Amino acid sequence: MRYFACTLLGLLLGSPAFGQDDAGVIKSIYDETLTNSPAYENLRYLTKKVGHRLAGSTGAAAAVEYTRQLMAGYGFDTVYLQPVMVPRWVRGGEEQLRMVSAHTGTVELAVTALGNSVGTGKTGIAARVVEVQNFDELKALGKKKVEGKIVFFNRPFDYTKINTFRAYGGAVNQRGSGAIEAAKLGAVAVVVRSMASQVDDVPHTGSLHYQEGIKKIPGVAVSTRDADLLSATLQADPELKVFIRTTSYMAGMEPSYNVIGQLTGSEKPDEYIVIGGHLDSWDVGEGAHDDGGGCMQAIEVLRTFKALGLRPKHSLRAVMFMNEENGLKGGKEYARVALAKNEKHILAIESDRGVFTPRGFTVGNAALLTKIKGWAPLFAPYEIYEFIPGGGGADIGPLKNQNTKMIGFLPDSHRYFTLHHTANDVFENVDKRELEMGAATITALVYLLDKYGVNE
Amino acid sequence: MRYFACTLLGLLLGSPAFGQDDAGVIKSIYDETLTNSPAYENLRYLTKKVGHRLAGSTGAAAAVEYTRQLMAGYGFDTVYLQPVMVPRWVRGGEEQLRMVSAHTGTVELAVTALGNSVGTGKTGIAARVVEVQNFDELKALGKKKVEGKIVFFNRPFDYTKINTFRAYGGAVNQRGSGAIEAAKLGAVAVVVRSMASQVDDVPHTGSLHYQEGIKKIPGVAVSTRDADLLSATLQADPELKVFIRTTSYMAGMEPSYNVIGQLTGSEKPDEYIVIGGHLDSWDVGEGAHDDGGGCMQAIEVLRTFKALGLRPKHSLRAVMFMNEENGLKGGKEYARVALAKNEKHILAIESDRGVFTPRGFTVGNAALLTKIKGWAPLFAPYEIYEFIPGGGGADIGPLKNQNTKMIGFLPDSHRYFTLHHTANDVFENVDKRELEMGAATITALVYLLDKYGVNE
Repeated sequence: MRYFACTLLGLLLGSPAFGQDDAGVIKSIYDETLTNSPAYENLRYLTKKVGHRLAGSTGAAAAVEYTRQLMAGYGFDTVYLQPVMVPRWVRGGEEQLRMVSAHTGTVELAVTALGNSVGTGKTGIAARVVEVQNFDELKALGKKKVEGKIVFFNRPFDYTKINTFRAYGGAVNQRGSGAIEAAKLGAVAVVVRSMASQVDDVPHTGSLHYQEGIKKIPGVAVSTRDADLLSATLQADPELKVFIRTTSYMAGMEPSYNVIGQLTGSEKPDEYIVIGGHLDSWDVGEGAHDDGGGCMQAIEVLRTFKALGLRPKHSLRAVMFMNEENGLKGGKEYARVALAKNEKHILAIESDRGVFTPRGFTVGNAALLTKIKGWAPLFAPYEIYEFIPGGGGADIGPLKNQNTKMIGFLPDSHRYFTLHHTANDVFENVDKRELEMGAATITALVYLLDKYGVNE
Repeated sequence: MRYFACTLLGLLLGSPAFGQDDAGVIKSIYDETLTNSPAYENLRYLTKKVGHRLAGSTGAAAAVEYTRQLMAGYGFDTVYLQPVMVPRWVRGGEEQLRMVSAHTGTVELAVTALGNSVGTGKTGIAARVVEVQNFDELKALGKKKVEGKIVFFNRPFDYTKINTFRAYGGAVNQRGSGAIEAAKLGAVAVVVRSMASQVDDVPHTGSLHYQEGIKKIPGVAVSTRDADLLSATLQADPELKVFIRTTSYMAGMEPSYNVIGQLTGSEKPDEYIVIGGHLDSWDVGEGAHDDGGGCMQAIEVLRTFKALGLRPKHSLRAVMFMNEENGLKGGKEYARVALAKNEKHILAIESDRGVFTPRGFTVGNAALLTKIKGWAPLFAPYEIYEFIPGGGGADIGPLKNQNTKMIGFLPDSHRYFTLHHTANDVFENVDKRELEMGAATITALVYLLDKYGVNE
């Protein structure tokens, strides 16, 4: 229907904005990826041999060297490391959340320290709990009811949002800024309901932020099921106490790298198209979907160009950004260097929403979105239909000030927030064809944008 | 783009074929399903408490009673069992495939007996092997080169087919009819490459057929990785021998049931819309995607109508068909009874392609397809874009002779043939939101078809 509608529209409104051979090239891109791609086996190595790789960790160093060797082995025109200093956060050995109430006795809840959080100290923190859904409720309680307490942020995802990133966006300020808002009113710690799209037993980590001049208090996330339990128990026993002990700490800055591979353009070598993912991951699970798969897709775009003998007009860069999860130092440094070297970045595409079956792209520029929609008939045979306004991604965001156009790869979102930032984000939960279909879809779009340009 | 295109087309070609309130009703259907559906927990019971349920097994009997109680508990207008005799195939305790070659020594391969297959007898079968890609190659070899041998069918999936069911369709005659074609030339057994969309260690079962007057020889499937190993070893050592021992047998016919729940229509109670899945499964795994999830979705359609107070004009039936996997006796009996009772079935929808994220529907009637495409703008907010020609499904197929229009639910296909008919088709590999999104999508279509009818 879409194909028909678009073809008909094309006839009504003018000829389509692509050539007859494009469909053939795009088919060859999908065929190559679905039959010859090493991306899945490479992801196996990154997740199973390297494992998780929080910025500044030894795992991150191994991942840098692995992806450098991988791209060098593919014979890309240039492969290099871009130095960047990153914060090193250490979880430490212990994390515990215990609920004590006459109604339940002692219950240990499923907990994970939030990234960047300070620890509780060895003796831990025991205090009464106030539950709120949002910052307005917290402020309404005021200092008198919050001081000395643990604030429990318990606003769930809105399950009716079809794209789960919208539900995430509607809940994540509790995790990101909850510790600041609670500390302003004298709270001693925060417990946050996990950023999850279902009720289960898996706690989700992720970064929290502190603010200059506001006391740094510890933050942890509990599983959604235990958040429900804590909430129900609080209803029955408002005087229940919670005990938290965490040993996390910020260890200072360490040297690390963005890893960059390049195919140099044949016509406009000084104009760059970046395809990026982030190489760091949380220190739970294996960072398979977030964002090992995105990195492997970025590399696969360039590998496929080479394998098919497609020489790009512009220079294509696969960039493995470092420290997206808890600092964004890699993305910022990449943009800083690009500006300092006067490298003209016309376009940046990021894959950092998991590597599930592809749905389309979010496009940050209205004119570019219109142009890409004109290519819809080329994508329909691959079940790609979503071309919608939206941001590109965190790592490429700092390039925005350089008039770089932004695109985000948009995979299906339904499964993402069952495993995002958890021990379940492992290789076994990545599907080979879904990873490859995503890589081929990004490659097809890069092919068209390189060929026809990013302007109207 | 699609929405825009269709809206524009609507303006150009006439007003859209739906009312302003339909978008609101459909949103309420998705909201209800995504927030209140018990389908996932019901599937947990069916898979974890009942388990697998091959036709004629005690598991199948438990599944019949479970789904009957479930629908009765939801207060559907009528819930009843429809008796049907089904074949009972028994795998028996042993299945073994051993490759013996001077090049490899003795290697045990990952194997599963094919459904409906006879066993090898206790002593097993040892023979030399001929490898073929298809029946033409087999016939070209002729009786002289096949007689007394084991035929190894090794044609892989075509990975470049975007919908994996097309790849399955291009390979499955090896499993279904390979034993007949091999026996015609005097082969003693067949080994079939698993019907899988990737190379891995998991053997896939599934039914084979015999033909009156042709000797019944045993059939087994090997994992795709072991198929590659067997093939490579055969290249090096054409004289290698394979030993097969299986203990499967057909145990005769047993009584069983289709399970039927009905909401009776307010305007045309004597016209029926069937929403079906099959309750039986293979005897490996738990039949979670195939087709426990499809059954739970069919029930969820009726539950959602009731929960939202939507009274259907036509009678809606959720039908759990029995014995789809190895006989189709349930589907045939349902159609026979419908004809005998002169029940007018205007429409049948089947969910039997797994319960992955929904993509759309296959529609077996051109005029109906056109009508449904007119509703595309109602589905776009839920990322549903595929309305394509195609069959409805095996269970509803026998209704075709009664002028019943056929629709198949079309989920994303990329993961299906990693777990179809394997030990990996378990509850853990079903995603809650994907199951629910599928149920809501089917409900939305049933709502529209019930309201506007299935004719032009």
